[in-house]
Amino acid sequence: MTDPRYTPLALSLPATVPFVGPETQERARGTAFTARLGANENIFGPSPRAIEAMQTASADIWMYGDPENHELRQALAAHHDLSPDNIMVGEGIDGLLGYLVRLLISPGDTVVTSLGAYPTFNYHVSGYGGVLHTVPYKDDHEDLTSLFAKAGEVGAKLVYLANPDNPMGSWHRGADIVAALDHLPSDCLLLLDEAYVECAPKGTAAPVDANDTRLIRMRTFSKAYGMAGARVGYALAAPDLIAAFNKVRNHFGMNRAAQAGALAALQDQDWLAHVLAEITTARRRIGEIADQNGLKAQPSATNFVAIDCGQDSIFAKRVLDALIDLGIFVRMPFAAPQNRCIRISCGPSKDLEAFASALPQALISARKTQ
Amino acid sequence: MTDPRYTPLALSLPATVPFVGPETQERARGTAFTARLGANENIFGPSPRAIEAMQTASADIWMYGDPENHELRQALAAHHDLSPDNIMVGEGIDGLLGYLVRLLISPGDTVVTSLGAYPTFNYHVSGYGGVLHTVPYKDDHEDLTSLFAKAGEVGAKLVYLANPDNPMGSWHRGADIVAALDHLPSDCLLLLDEAYVECAPKGTAAPVDANDTRLIRMRTFSKAYGMAGARVGYALAAPDLIAAFNKVRNHFGMNRAAQAGALAALQDQDWLAHVLAEITTARRRIGEIADQNGLKAQPSATNFVAIDCGQDSIFAKRVLDALIDLGIFVRMPFAAPQNRCIRISCGPSKDLEAFASALPQALISARKTQ
Repeated sequence: MTDPRYTPLALSLPATVPFVGPETQERARGTAFTARLGANENIFGPSPRAIEAMQTASADIWMYGDPENHELRQALAAHHDLSPDNIMVGEGIDGLLGYLVRLLISPGDTVVTSLGAYPTFNYHVSGYGGVLHTVPYKDDHEDLTSLFAKAGEVGAKLVYLANPDNPMGSWHRGADIVAALDHLPSDCLLLLDEAYVECAPKGTAAPVDANDTRLIRMRTFSKAYGMAGARVGYALAAPDLIAAFNKVRNHFGMNRAAQAGALAALQDQDWLAHVLAEITTARRRIGEIADQNGLKAQPSATNFVAIDCGQDSIFAKRVLDALIDLGIFVRMPFAAPQNRCIRISCGPSKDLEAFASALPQALISARKTQ
Repeated sequence: MTDPRYTPLALSLPATVPFVGPETQERARGTAFTARLGANENIFGPSPRAIEAMQTASADIWMYGDPENHELRQALAAHHDLSPDNIMVGEGIDGLLGYLVRLLISPGDTVVTSLGAYPTFNYHVSGYGGVLHTVPYKDDHEDLTSLFAKAGEVGAKLVYLANPDNPMGSWHRGADIVAALDHLPSDCLLLLDEAYVECAPKGTAAPVDANDTRLIRMRTFSKAYGMAGARVGYALAAPDLIAAFNKVRNHFGMNRAAQAGALAALQDQDWLAHVLAEITTARRRIGEIADQNGLKAQPSATNFVAIDCGQDSIFAKRVLDALIDLGIFVRMPFAAPQNRCIRISCGPSKDLEAFASALPQALISARKTQ
């Protein structure tokens, strides 16, 4: 045979990649980036205790990880003051998003998100044949009212909301999300992606009962905890929904060292506080750099800052391309009007000063080619 | 709402777990196992260079892994003398099995495997609504002729064959598999799981062209390379089929330290040779232990040995339960007649002697309760 008999759905899917990795760009450039500021990674890194735990566990990597993620779930339950039955650990939020979409979405089912929000969620929805409806951002914020109204209008099974938002770094008060839940259609589940919530002001995390069946929240060790390469995320939801993941997940899918690292990272809240202070400093510095170049940094509750380049997406793309040529890896939002911005990860001075040095030249270059 | 609107398929799925982890059993027992010989893990462990590479990469875990697995695919291509386009790296064979089944199987599609072969494959088939047909083992070997005949009979899209086999450790010559391919229905893909092939005699790996569209082969760093907890597997197939994985896989799903570890493990073939010699010694010792207890060890081309307990599955289960009570973690096949056996992983003397000490008592206990 020439081709296997793919499913009609698989045949219909494009061979898309949600993101191109910086390593791919480095290979194309033939040289490494000076600063890696494009992927919302946390350059301050994880707790030294987490690194040590992963290094110790590496020597025992001949063993499969515990498929129940028992110790980590126990620790997370204590940390969040809820039951382990409210917690599912998975291969990053990306992995958990895939499982959740698989549980809910058959071909033709409708899903709502914001235009230009997290592409990997959209990738999973398309991958299971879901039909995606979008609502625009409002003043650079995901628009709670419109999202939930659209969900009702299209009969959505699932609505996606990131709080704080990626790529803009904007946020809603958790209490406002809880209030808005009254307007969520009763047969629609809210997927609340709180990947960046540790970086946000107090009151940003949605103050909901873990057994509230109207929503599922997702958290990660990739951002504030600085372990993106480990692939550890978790979902918080009512026990029945958490248990449903056991029907489809890759039970032995977790890396054993990553399990140990996440546990140690959670137990080192002092390091988390240290990193959050560094992120605050970095956000301020990115704001200054923008100012000094006549650009406007967006307020951010995340470990990155969107900088408004003051013109359209074509201009922002020119700035981005020039930065990449100068060895600074950055990314930009995918959809208008957010794509007038470029997005800069927080990092130590060395990285930010490399960005500060490159930006004026990138702007000259971008303006020259207009 | 009380429940999200799950898909009909998700509603139909049981909350099954393909395997219970040894940690779960340890928590139930209240104490750790003396020897961990049940999960086909490789207790000899990975190359020290692989451990070092993972430890070094742990310090850089703030970065996502390369979604293209570029370096590892390049190295695997050189190792196997084929193109990187023939290789897909994924989150263990388990992860790759899930992606492949997703690409091919819609509800109602038929799949063929052997009765009592790898349960995680069956889990994925059921998880995507596939209908599984099985053929019995023949003389404790997966039955090539019957598998391919059954595939034709039921119009299977996919047929699963593990060579060497798990759980029996038996094997076919690679050339015999290639010859049998002539009898594979032209519209059916052979999934050849070669997870244990490095442990097998020369000539066991199927000598096929990587561009042969009749089959896809799967390999892993979990077994001979001793990195089960890292979750690194790979598929070898024609470029179009390899590219199809990009439609559905979790592009950023690989642990960055695991990528580095697998690369270092592949580059240390001396360590692999050392481990294979240890496995040969261990298989012989397990055979002696069986002999000394009046039992029969099955010939094995893997890093485990199935021991025929000489009676039925009820008796084998009694032996297994007694061993577990005595602190020896072992497992047994799921289906008759293979489930007259218990299955013992190869390991260092310390572990095997713990098994040797426990087995006579376990047999007495098993016979007593009859």
